[in-house]
Amino acid sequence: MNHPYDLRLGAVKAAYLAGTTTPRQLIGALREQAAALSPEFNLFIHLLTEQELEPYLAALDGKNADSLPLFGVPFAIKDNIDLAGIPTTAACPAFAYTPSESATLVKQLLALGAVPLGKTNLDQFATGLNGTRSPYGPCRNSVHPDYPSGGSSAGSSLAVALGLASFSLGTDTAGSGRVPAALNNLVGLKATKGLISTAGVVPACRTLDCVTYFTATAREASQLLGLTATLDPADAYSRKNPLWNDASAFGLPRKGFRFGVPKQLEFLGCPESPALFGATIKHLEALGGVAVELDFEPFAEAARLLYEGPWVAERYSVAGELIEAQPDAVLPVIHAVLSKAPGTTAVELFRAQYRLQELKAICDRAMAELECVLTPAYPRPVTLAELAAEPVKRNSDLGYYTNFMNMLDYAAIAVPAGFMANGLPWGVTLFGRPFTDQYLLSLAESLQCETDLPLAGERSLGLTAPTTLARHDLARVVVCGAHLDGLPLNWQLKQRGGRLLQATQSSPDYQLWALAGGPPLRPGMMRVAEGGVAIEVEVWELPSSELGSFLTGIPAPLGLGKVQLADGTWESGFICEPYGLAGATDISHFGGWRAYLKSK
Amino acid sequence: MNHPYDLRLGAVKAAYLAGTTTPRQLIGALREQAAALSPEFNLFIHLLTEQELEPYLAALDGKNADSLPLFGVPFAIKDNIDLAGIPTTAACPAFAYTPSESATLVKQLLALGAVPLGKTNLDQFATGLNGTRSPYGPCRNSVHPDYPSGGSSAGSSLAVALGLASFSLGTDTAGSGRVPAALNNLVGLKATKGLISTAGVVPACRTLDCVTYFTATAREASQLLGLTATLDPADAYSRKNPLWNDASAFGLPRKGFRFGVPKQLEFLGCPESPALFGATIKHLEALGGVAVELDFEPFAEAARLLYEGPWVAERYSVAGELIEAQPDAVLPVIHAVLSKAPGTTAVELFRAQYRLQELKAICDRAMAELECVLTPAYPRPVTLAELAAEPVKRNSDLGYYTNFMNMLDYAAIAVPAGFMANGLPWGVTLFGRPFTDQYLLSLAESLQCETDLPLAGERSLGLTAPTTLARHDLARVVVCGAHLDGLPLNWQLKQRGGRLLQATQSSPDYQLWALAGGPPLRPGMMRVAEGGVAIEVEVWELPSSELGSFLTGIPAPLGLGKVQLADGTWESGFICEPYGLAGATDISHFGGWRAYLKSK
Repeated sequence: MNHPYDLRLGAVKAAYLAGTTTPRQLIGALREQAAALSPEFNLFIHLLTEQELEPYLAALDGKNADSLPLFGVPFAIKDNIDLAGIPTTAACPAFAYTPSESATLVKQLLALGAVPLGKTNLDQFATGLNGTRSPYGPCRNSVHPDYPSGGSSAGSSLAVALGLASFSLGTDTAGSGRVPAALNNLVGLKATKGLISTAGVVPACRTLDCVTYFTATAREASQLLGLTATLDPADAYSRKNPLWNDASAFGLPRKGFRFGVPKQLEFLGCPESPALFGATIKHLEALGGVAVELDFEPFAEAARLLYEGPWVAERYSVAGELIEAQPDAVLPVIHAVLSKAPGTTAVELFRAQYRLQELKAICDRAMAELECVLTPAYPRPVTLAELAAEPVKRNSDLGYYTNFMNMLDYAAIAVPAGFMANGLPWGVTLFGRPFTDQYLLSLAESLQCETDLPLAGERSLGLTAPTTLARHDLARVVVCGAHLDGLPLNWQLKQRGGRLLQATQSSPDYQLWALAGGPPLRPGMMRVAEGGVAIEVEVWELPSSELGSFLTGIPAPLGLGKVQLADGTWESGFICEPYGLAGATDISHFGGWRAYLKSK
Repeated sequence: MNHPYDLRLGAVKAAYLAGTTTPRQLIGALREQAAALSPEFNLFIHLLTEQELEPYLAALDGKNADSLPLFGVPFAIKDNIDLAGIPTTAACPAFAYTPSESATLVKQLLALGAVPLGKTNLDQFATGLNGTRSPYGPCRNSVHPDYPSGGSSAGSSLAVALGLASFSLGTDTAGSGRVPAALNNLVGLKATKGLISTAGVVPACRTLDCVTYFTATAREASQLLGLTATLDPADAYSRKNPLWNDASAFGLPRKGFRFGVPKQLEFLGCPESPALFGATIKHLEALGGVAVELDFEPFAEAARLLYEGPWVAERYSVAGELIEAQPDAVLPVIHAVLSKAPGTTAVELFRAQYRLQELKAICDRAMAELECVLTPAYPRPVTLAELAAEPVKRNSDLGYYTNFMNMLDYAAIAVPAGFMANGLPWGVTLFGRPFTDQYLLSLAESLQCETDLPLAGERSLGLTAPTTLARHDLARVVVCGAHLDGLPLNWQLKQRGGRLLQATQSSPDYQLWALAGGPPLRPGMMRVAEGGVAIEVEVWELPSSELGSFLTGIPAPLGLGKVQLADGTWESGFICEPYGLAGATDISHFGGWRAYLKSK
């Protein structure tokens, strides 16, 4: 189904600036479409009325589309996230309440100019990955009527996939923001826990819950995360975003980046997924990536802990009182899932938390060697008929690659990566260490540019690949003297987790001087306008969080600035102040510190 | 009681190097003393026999005292920490086992040359803060016979206080490494959770347990932490020490450092503690500190959660099976403490963990504004008679200022701070954000130098205060251009949590140049051998972990090196490469970037 409007953030803004439409016109038209589509897809639990929309539209009247980053951008809200004045149901009418205040994130988006279209359907209490566990009706897939939308953020995925909203809000405890993205040809961003506020969200498992974005493209998800990642005093689980993880360095991944691929791949017999996954590996390799085999068993065991272990008591702490008071108020399948929770003891929970910590230590060690991991988003799709026949098992099948993510505290992004023969969208997940969200998004965008798949609504991507390098939690530093591999100060890099990326030369614009003093003997490297040569250097990589203490340990006249390499790129690296050359010897003709040391 | 030997790390090494004693002689003599003292103090559960000592001494034969950092240094081990071949009892004979391998930390210390004297008495299963809950007899105080040693690391504190070991190992879940330090005139280092491996330690509460050091001085504790902080693959709760927290920058705190003092002080009616505490505040102020009032209620509530809430189930997960099989194998008081554990549900535990997280968010916000917090180590001492009369209540009294520490993930150090009229030692606690251990230790040393109290065994401190600045998790950076307060790039500091410390001038050795290009307009500041002037600068402070991303965002020809301030000190700050002055204008005569901008 073609979308009548291009709702990507840039397109909406361009249309407003060009005057081809106004928020009132666009949102009004989308509201009509939504009303027409909702009965078939059971998409909205509550579509805002014209009267309910009015204050949001009135707030934009007389303002220029340039005045707010999300001016007049339509979005949809999963109905476990508060919008002031509209009931929050969590798909359980007996649980419903009408909040007087919007969730922190919704308040942020409204202040940025975005306009809410409505509250979307979900698996009750966000417990499910398929989208059919709702008294408001099952959500069918946006493309294929025999398949579910995926869940629990079912309606939110449909709102974007059907062209009714630029983006939508989901939640994700075990995969609810990623499975429906993959099934509907969308990007699903489950950012690092705590980056996006969960204040004003009905908890599923409060220690694990994340709010997510559904978008057509990774670039839009990056913009939205950059605008809304915040340390929220109203959310005790909120965390500060380190500044290396802002959106400004969005770009190409470094050539040679290492991506993990599970040694044990599980497709549950799907005949098409293996080839689709293999093709995605090839795409990442075409982007310069190097596939590294990863033992997936500890990740899979962490996933099993979530549903087979005592974490189910976390969900019970929200819905338990209601279940005890009105057993019929919740769906039988939810009742069954939560039934073993009250009997679970604190001793069992502590033991499970120890096991999780052990698994996390193992997984973290593996992740430390990689920039990211690539998995299928789901092993194989399941049909509505299969779900009806085996509601718990088939739901679990969908979560095989998603359940462990928040347990282990990783950032994850579902990215469209192909289509099955029957047209059903198929996707992958890119995940990585916490606070590498923007890096993962830049990689996701590169993948989208590389595959150039049609977006939901048959629109083409129309993006050119970025040319700058993406930033993650590691920083690069160019060394030219006593920090070179094997030399006396190299331990300062290694002790910080430093890794040698490349032995190369500077651009031919430098002088090298042997400084007076020592030990240790140290050179100073200085860029000159003319008469420079290429100097032997090494590029090391170390955690960005450790670069500061490395810097503070560097004595005058040395410092860290920007050094140009032989390939023309610039990286952070050692520079030298000219006053420090008093008593120094020009050793440029040796071409490097090692050659000079050998000559002595 | 005077100690016959000076067992401080430096003194032991000096004696060995001078040849006045050997490990065999010294350890042999200490063994005899220990055997003589142990009956009165119930100090050792197992004192190593000469045969058991022999392999450790033999390993040092023929080696120079310079060859190993802890060559021949005697230490004692709390009997819930494994020493290969010696039973670990946790003060519960029915629980005892003989490990074939030593705990990771013990292995590290042995490899560094330290020699174990024996396994020390403790409150059973490390459950207690007083030192009398042991079938191996109660531990009396090292100074006053009417008082307990404090616990649970009772014997370990006595081993150092009585001059039998240079240092000893304790554990600390709720204060077991700090209360006995304060009661025996010792430094008790409870480092940040995860810095010291707990592999090979009988858990009390595995999510909270720390191994601790008892020493006479903070400087020794700093050395030991520097030698043994490690990321241990055998301990799932192990964490990497950021390199800003190494021991190399041990020194004076910065003038004007802010230390929190509880608004609600609790002394439980002690007539002497208030004055002792007030005197300590004065000492920190004499060191340049500024006292800041701190709301202590959220800290106190977190403390109550530990013993009144479901964390008791954590202890039960260790001792529970034994209690169920042999109810008489554990002391009645331990049995009583753990009795409510089996009935606690996972739902209750999750709810308590949420509450703890809320409290932690509140406390962390307060801690972000401070370099450290000062509290009494205990509100008032309790006598052995009081403990016998009310064993649970009087034990709790001792933990008022310690119980919350691991729950909230802070680093803490007990420091001797005076004596009561009856001679009983009295101490304070300095605590701070995780990974500021070495900063807190440098502050503790400065406090020890300032008070110059006699050490245990009537020895005098004999240390001179250090002259360098101590490092913590914040880094300082000198800015001179567009990053000055209110100028276009200042947000880069503020968004990283930057705080203006000081507006001042550089030393009179600099030129300031207006660089070509922009916006933003930027100056370059360059140190010169002659003809320099003083330039207006600002010193900002920001998290060390954020300094790296700040650096990587700085374009050529600028960088960060070392800049000298008007007071002669050097700080990290902006420097400029000389090639970048092409097309630039010397604006040194304006004396600063602001004055230049005004002139335009």
